[in-house]
Amino acid sequence: MFFASDNWAGAHPKIAERLHASAAGFSRAYGDGDLDQAVYARFSEIFEREVAVFFVATGTAANSLALAAYNRPGGISFGHRESHIIEDECGAPEYFTGGSRLHAIDGALGRMDVRTLERAVDRFAPEFVHAGRPMAISMTQSTEVGTVYGLDEIKAISAIARQYSLPLHMDGARFANALVSLDTTPAEMTWKRGVDIVSFGGTKNGCWCAEAVVLFDLDRAKEMAFLRKRAAQLFSKSRFISAQFDAYFDGGLWLDTARHANEMTAELAATIASSPVARLAWQPQANEVFAVIKTDVAKKALAAGAAFYDWHAPAGFDGQLGEDETLYRFVTSFATTADEIGRFGELLRS
Amino acid sequence: MFFASDNWAGAHPKIAERLHASAAGFSRAYGDGDLDQAVYARFSEIFEREVAVFFVATGTAANSLALAAYNRPGGISFGHRESHIIEDECGAPEYFTGGSRLHAIDGALGRMDVRTLERAVDRFAPEFVHAGRPMAISMTQSTEVGTVYGLDEIKAISAIARQYSLPLHMDGARFANALVSLDTTPAEMTWKRGVDIVSFGGTKNGCWCAEAVVLFDLDRAKEMAFLRKRAAQLFSKSRFISAQFDAYFDGGLWLDTARHANEMTAELAATIASSPVARLAWQPQANEVFAVIKTDVAKKALAAGAAFYDWHAPAGFDGQLGEDETLYRFVTSFATTADEIGRFGELLRS
Amino acid sequence: MFFASDNWAGAHPKIAERLHASAAGFSRAYGDGDLDQAVYARFSEIFEREVAVFFVATGTAANSLALAAYNRPGGISFGHRESHIIEDECGAPEYFTGGSRLHAIDGALGRMDVRTLERAVDRFAPEFVHAGRPMAISMTQSTEVGTVYGLDEIKAISAIARQYSLPLHMDGARFANALVSLDTTPAEMTWKRGVDIVSFGGTKNGCWCAEAVVLFDLDRAKEMAFLRKRAAQLFSKSRFISAQFDAYFDGGLWLDTARHANEMTAELAATIASSPVARLAWQPQANEVFAVIKTDVAKKALAAGAAFYDWHAPAGFDGQLGEDETLYRFVTSFATTADEIGRFGELLRS
Amino acid sequence: MFFASDNWAGAHPKIAERLHASAAGFSRAYGDGDLDQAVYARFSEIFEREVAVFFVATGTAANSLALAAYNRPGGISFGHRESHIIEDECGAPEYFTGGSRLHAIDGALGRMDVRTLERAVDRFAPEFVHAGRPMAISMTQSTEVGTVYGLDEIKAISAIARQYSLPLHMDGARFANALVSLDTTPAEMTWKRGVDIVSFGGTKNGCWCAEAVVLFDLDRAKEMAFLRKRAAQLFSKSRFISAQFDAYFDGGLWLDTARHANEMTAELAATIASSPVARLAWQPQANEVFAVIKTDVAKKALAAGAAFYDWHAPAGFDGQLGEDETLYRFVTSFATTADEIGRFGELLRS
Repeated sequence: MFFASDNWAGAHPKIAERLHASAAGFSRAYGDGDLDQAVYARFSEIFEREVAVFFVATGTAANSLALAAYNRPGGISFGHRESHIIEDECGAPEYFTGGSRLHAIDGALGRMDVRTLERAVDRFAPEFVHAGRPMAISMTQSTEVGTVYGLDEIKAISAIARQYSLPLHMDGARFANALVSLDTTPAEMTWKRGVDIVSFGGTKNGCWCAEAVVLFDLDRAKEMAFLRKRAAQLFSKSRFISAQFDAYFDGGLWLDTARHANEMTAELAATIASSPVARLAWQPQANEVFAVIKTDVAKKALAAGAAFYDWHAPAGFDGQLGEDETLYRFVTSFATTADEIGRFGELLRS
Repeated sequence: MFFASDNWAGAHPKIAERLHASAAGFSRAYGDGDLDQAVYARFSEIFEREVAVFFVATGTAANSLALAAYNRPGGISFGHRESHIIEDECGAPEYFTGGSRLHAIDGALGRMDVRTLERAVDRFAPEFVHAGRPMAISMTQSTEVGTVYGLDEIKAISAIARQYSLPLHMDGARFANALVSLDTTPAEMTWKRGVDIVSFGGTKNGCWCAEAVVLFDLDRAKEMAFLRKRAAQLFSKSRFISAQFDAYFDGGLWLDTARHANEMTAELAATIASSPVARLAWQPQANEVFAVIKTDVAKKALAAGAAFYDWHAPAGFDGQLGEDETLYRFVTSFATTADEIGRFGELLRS
Repeated sequence: MFFASDNWAGAHPKIAERLHASAAGFSRAYGDGDLDQAVYARFSEIFEREVAVFFVATGTAANSLALAAYNRPGGISFGHRESHIIEDECGAPEYFTGGSRLHAIDGALGRMDVRTLERAVDRFAPEFVHAGRPMAISMTQSTEVGTVYGLDEIKAISAIARQYSLPLHMDGARFANALVSLDTTPAEMTWKRGVDIVSFGGTKNGCWCAEAVVLFDLDRAKEMAFLRKRAAQLFSKSRFISAQFDAYFDGGLWLDTARHANEMTAELAATIASSPVARLAWQPQANEVFAVIKTDVAKKALAAGAAFYDWHAPAGFDGQLGEDETLYRFVTSFATTADEIGRFGELLRS
Repeated sequence: MFFASDNWAGAHPKIAERLHASAAGFSRAYGDGDLDQAVYARFSEIFEREVAVFFVATGTAANSLALAAYNRPGGISFGHRESHIIEDECGAPEYFTGGSRLHAIDGALGRMDVRTLERAVDRFAPEFVHAGRPMAISMTQSTEVGTVYGLDEIKAISAIARQYSLPLHMDGARFANALVSLDTTPAEMTWKRGVDIVSFGGTKNGCWCAEAVVLFDLDRAKEMAFLRKRAAQLFSKSRFISAQFDAYFDGGLWLDTARHANEMTAELAATIASSPVARLAWQPQANEVFAVIKTDVAKKALAAGAAFYDWHAPAGFDGQLGEDETLYRFVTSFATTADEIGRFGELLRS
C-alpha cells in the first residue's frame, strides 16, 4: 500500500532488464554513443518532428535548464502557485538562471487560470527596467494535484505566450500520465499546441533515473549543450539513461505503465468514493488521488503499513474539512497493484 | 582495444546485477531509504569515522559542490593547471559558486608543486578586498595524467591549507586507483592527511553512475543538503545509486576493479615500453598510460579499431617529440582485458 | 510643481556647497580617507552604538547587499508585496544572492500584516530541503505608499524574526521621513526594536547620491567589504559620498529636510482634501500623498506643468474609484515649496 | 607629493563648479533628464558615431557589465595577467557573469602579447563543451603599468577578435591619458580599430565619480539597460554624473587634464632619471612612472610626506633590483603640480 509517491517505486522489470543487458561492452561517453543516438532519433519519432534531446539527472534539472535556455536579465517566469518549480525545487530555477524570478499564478486545482495569467504577464508589458520583464511561461502536465490541462487550455496558454513573445515550457514529470489521460499524442500535446520546450520525465513512470529536456527549437540546442555541462548535468556513461529510455519506449511500454498507473488511480478513487469514512476531494485525471478521510481512520491505515501523505488544500478545493477529517494525497504508479488497493479498501471499511 | 577512457566501459556485472535485483519493491525517496542509510553507514566504515555522504550525478557536480560548500565572496581556489575543475568542467565550479575563481598551480606531471602552491596562496594573504582571497585548495588523486600524490605530498599540501585556514578538497574521480596504487586506506589517504572533503567517484571504476561528496566536517552537512538540492542534484530514486555503491563496496569489489585497471595499465605500459615504435612518456602510477608513438603506427592502430586519444604534453613532460611522433593517452578500467592489450601489442609490432 | 518623485530634485545647497568645498586636496581612496572615517564615526554617534557603514551607489545596491549579507542556499526573504525590492529593482536582490527568493507578504497600505508574515515564515519552518528556507525579513520605512510602521509594529515584526532566527532588514530609502514622522531616534527605530541591518538612504532627502548599508552586527562587516567590492560598489573617491553625508548630518540638516518634506506633504494633503475634485486616498504619514482626482482635472494640471504619476491601487485602499477618477501619487522633498503647492491648489480649483 | 594614485585627488575645479551649479531645480530621474540626454549626444559627437552610453558607479562595474553584455555559458574572456579585471576587482567580472572565466595572457609591460593571445584563444576553438569557449577579449588602455597600446597593436588584437568572432572590450579607466599619449581621436583608438565596447573612465582624470559603458553595437543597448539596473548601477539622480561629464568634455577639459597628468609624469620621470639614487624601470607613456629607487631614500621620502606605493615587478621588467633597491609606482593626475615634483626631486637629491 505504497501510495506516498510514484518515486517510491523502483524500476519496471523491462527497464531493469534492458539496463542489465547494456552493461557489457564499450561505448562512446557523454551522449555520443550509438545507443544514445538511436534514442535521440526515437524521441524525434515520438514527437513527429526533429527534436533536440538532453538527458539530465533530475526533473528539477530539466525544469531549471529549460528556463535557463530562455534566460534574460530581469526575467520573470510565470507558473502555477503550487507548481514544482515554485514549491519543491529549493530555488533551483532561480539559481540556474542567476536570479530570475518565478511569478505565481493562481488557478483552481493546479491549473493556471488563463485570464489571471494574461493579466499577470500584461502587467510587465511593455518592458520597464525597474519592474523586470517576462521571460517564460511554465505549465505542469499533469499538474501537482493530479489534474490535466485539456488541449484547448494548452492552446489558450500558448496564445498568451505568443502574444507576448514568450516561450512556453511544459513540466512533464508526469508527461505520460497526462498523455494517456487525454488519449492524445506527444505532438498534439506539445508543439502542435504551441509548447516550445518540455521537461520529459521517465523516472516517475518506471525508470530509475531518466529525465530529458526536449527542445523543438533546434537553434537553441548548441547553447543547451553548454548550459547542461556547466550545470554538471552531463552524464559520462549516458548509455545508462539511453538504455532506460530505449526500453521505456519499446513497444509503447511507457504508455502501458502510465495507463496502468492511471487505472490504479481510478480504482483507488472508486474505492475511496464508496467508503463511508472518505470522499474524493476532486476528480482525479491522472495518477494521483486526493481524498478527505476521517483522520483516525487514516492514522490506523498508516499504522497498518499504508504510506501516503497529508496535503495542504490547494486553491480551488471547495470542500469543507470537518474537524475530524484530513486531506490526503495518494499516488499510483506502474508498480501499484489492485491487491494493494483492495487491502487499503479493507482498511477503510474496518 | 578501448583505451579511450574509463567511462567508455559500462557497468561491472556484479553492480549491474545488484541494480537489477534492487528494482522491485518500494523505498523512501530522496536518499532516505533503508538501502541509502545502509550505504551511508558503509562509507563511514570505509573511512573509519562518521562521514556525511551526498550522492550526485557527475564528478563535475561533486567537485563543484565541494567548492560551493566553502564558498565565500571574492574566493579563489587553487588547483593544478591541468586539473579537471580547470580544464574539463566548462566553468561549473565557478558557476556553482556564483563566480569564485580557480587559480592554476603549475607542477610536473599533474601534481601541484608544493612551493609554487604556497607562494600562490601566500600572495593573497593577508586578505585584501581588491585581490580577492583564498577559499580552498583542490588536489586530484589520482591525477589527470595517471600519477599519484604520495601520502607525504598530501600531508605537505594540507599543511599549507592549515597554515592559511583553507579546506583541502580531493577530486577522487579515480580515488580507488590511487588507493590501490599507494596500497593504503581511505582514511590514511584523506582525513588522516588533512583532507576535508572528497569527490568520491565510482563511475570510472565500474559503476554506471555513482558519485558522492564525502564530508568529514559534519557541521557542513546541513548546508550541503540545500546546496545539492538547489543544484538539482538530489535524485528521487536514490536507491539506484545506493545499489551500485552497495555492490561496489561488497567484498572489496571496488579495490579489485581498481587493482585490475592498474594492472592492465602496467601490462599495457610494459607492452609499449618494449616496442621499437613507442615509449612511455612517463611512468604510470594508476590506470592511465601516456606514450609517445610513431604517428603512422598509431593511426594504423586506430584504423584497426583501437580507441585512444592524442594528448597535449603536460608540464613536466621532458621527452622530446620527434616530428613523426605523437603523445597519446590510454586508459584502462575494470573492463580492460589482457587479450585487448595483447592485440594492441601486435598492432605495435606489425 | 514637481511632485513626480523625491529623486527629481537635485542636491540641497548645503550639501552641494560641502561637496564643492571638498574638491581640492588629496585623500586616501576606497573609503579609507580622514573624512570617510569621520563620517563613519558620525554614523555611530547617530545610532548610539558602534556600527559598520558601507557606502554604495544606489538604494537597490544597499537592499541587495543587505540581503546578500545573510544569504543562504535555498533562502527566502519576506517583504511587502509592493516593496521596492519586489516591485522596482529588476531582480537585483535575487541576482546579488545568486537566486534567493523574495516572498511577497500582503498587508494594508504598504505595511506587512504581522499575522500574515508569521504564517508565511512558519510555513517554511522547520527547514525542508525541497521548499527552501527562511533567510531574512525586510521592511520598508517609510513605505512605498507613504505610511510608516509604528515602533510597536517594528517590535512585533522583529519578534517574528527572533522567533525564527532571521535577520530583520529595514529599507530606509526614506529613513529620515519616517524618523521625523515618528518623532523618534535612529536607535529607537532600529536596533532597539530588533532591526539588524539598514539601507540608509540620503539621496531622496537632499543628497546627490548618498546611500549606505549600516550593520549593527560588526562581525559581518568583513564579509560585507568583500560583498560590496565584488558587486562593484566600492567607490574610489569615496570622499564624495562622505562629503555629502557630512553636510547631511551637520546641524541636523537631514532632519530639517525630512521635516520640510513631510510638512509639504501635509500642506499638499490639506490642499487636496479641501478640493471638490479630489480627495485623499489615505492619510499620509511621511512625504508622499496619494489622492483620487477627477481625471480630466489631473490631466489639465499635468498639461499645465505639474509632474506626478498615476498609481495602481495598493492593497488596503478601500476607496472606490469613480469612472472619471484616477489614483495619483505626489512626492514632496526638501526642494518642494509652499508656492508650488499653492499653484497646484489653484489648478485644482480652476 | 601625492603620487599614490590618481584617485587620491578630488575633483577638478571646473567639474566641482558645474556640479554645484546643477544642484538646483528638478529633472527627470534614472538617466532620462535633459542634461543626461545632452551628455549622451556629446558622447556620440566625441566618438563620431552614434553610441549608447550607460553611466555606472565604478570602473569595476563598467568592466563587469561590458563583459556581461557578451556573456555566454562556459564563457572565457582573455585579458592581460596584470589587468584590473584579473588583479583588482575581487572577482566582480566573474560574479556579474555568473561564473565566466578570465584567462590570463602574458605580455611585456602590461600589454598582451599578440601571438600569445592568439594561441590562447585558438586553444578553445572550435568550441568544445568540456573546455568552455571564448567569450571576449579585454584590453586596458592605458595599461596598469603606464604603457599604451599603439593603434596598430589595437588593430592586431581586434583582428584576432574578428577571426574568432569575439567582441573586443577596452578598459579605459585611463582612456584620456592614452588618447593624449597617442595624439589620436576616440574614434581612431576604438571602433575604427575594431573595439566593440569601452569602459570610459572620467574619475581618475578629474571627476568625482563618472564612469560609463559605451557601446558601439546599439542593438545591445536594450539588454544593457536591464543588466545595469539588475546590477544596482542605475543612479536615480543621474544628473550628478551628467553634470560632471558635461564639464569634463566642455572645451576639451578632459584632454587638458590628461595632458597635464602625462606631462607631470614626464617631468617626474626626468627628475627620477637624473637622480643618482633612482632610475626609470621603463619608459612611461601615460600618467604613471615606475622607478627603481634606493630603498632607504624612498623610505625617507615617504616619511617626509610623499605618498607612493611599492610595486611587484611586472612581466617584461628586465631590470635587476639591487638588494638595497625597490620598485615603486608613481601616479600623476590633473591635480599634480610641478612644485610637488620639484620637492620630490629635492628629497631624492638630499
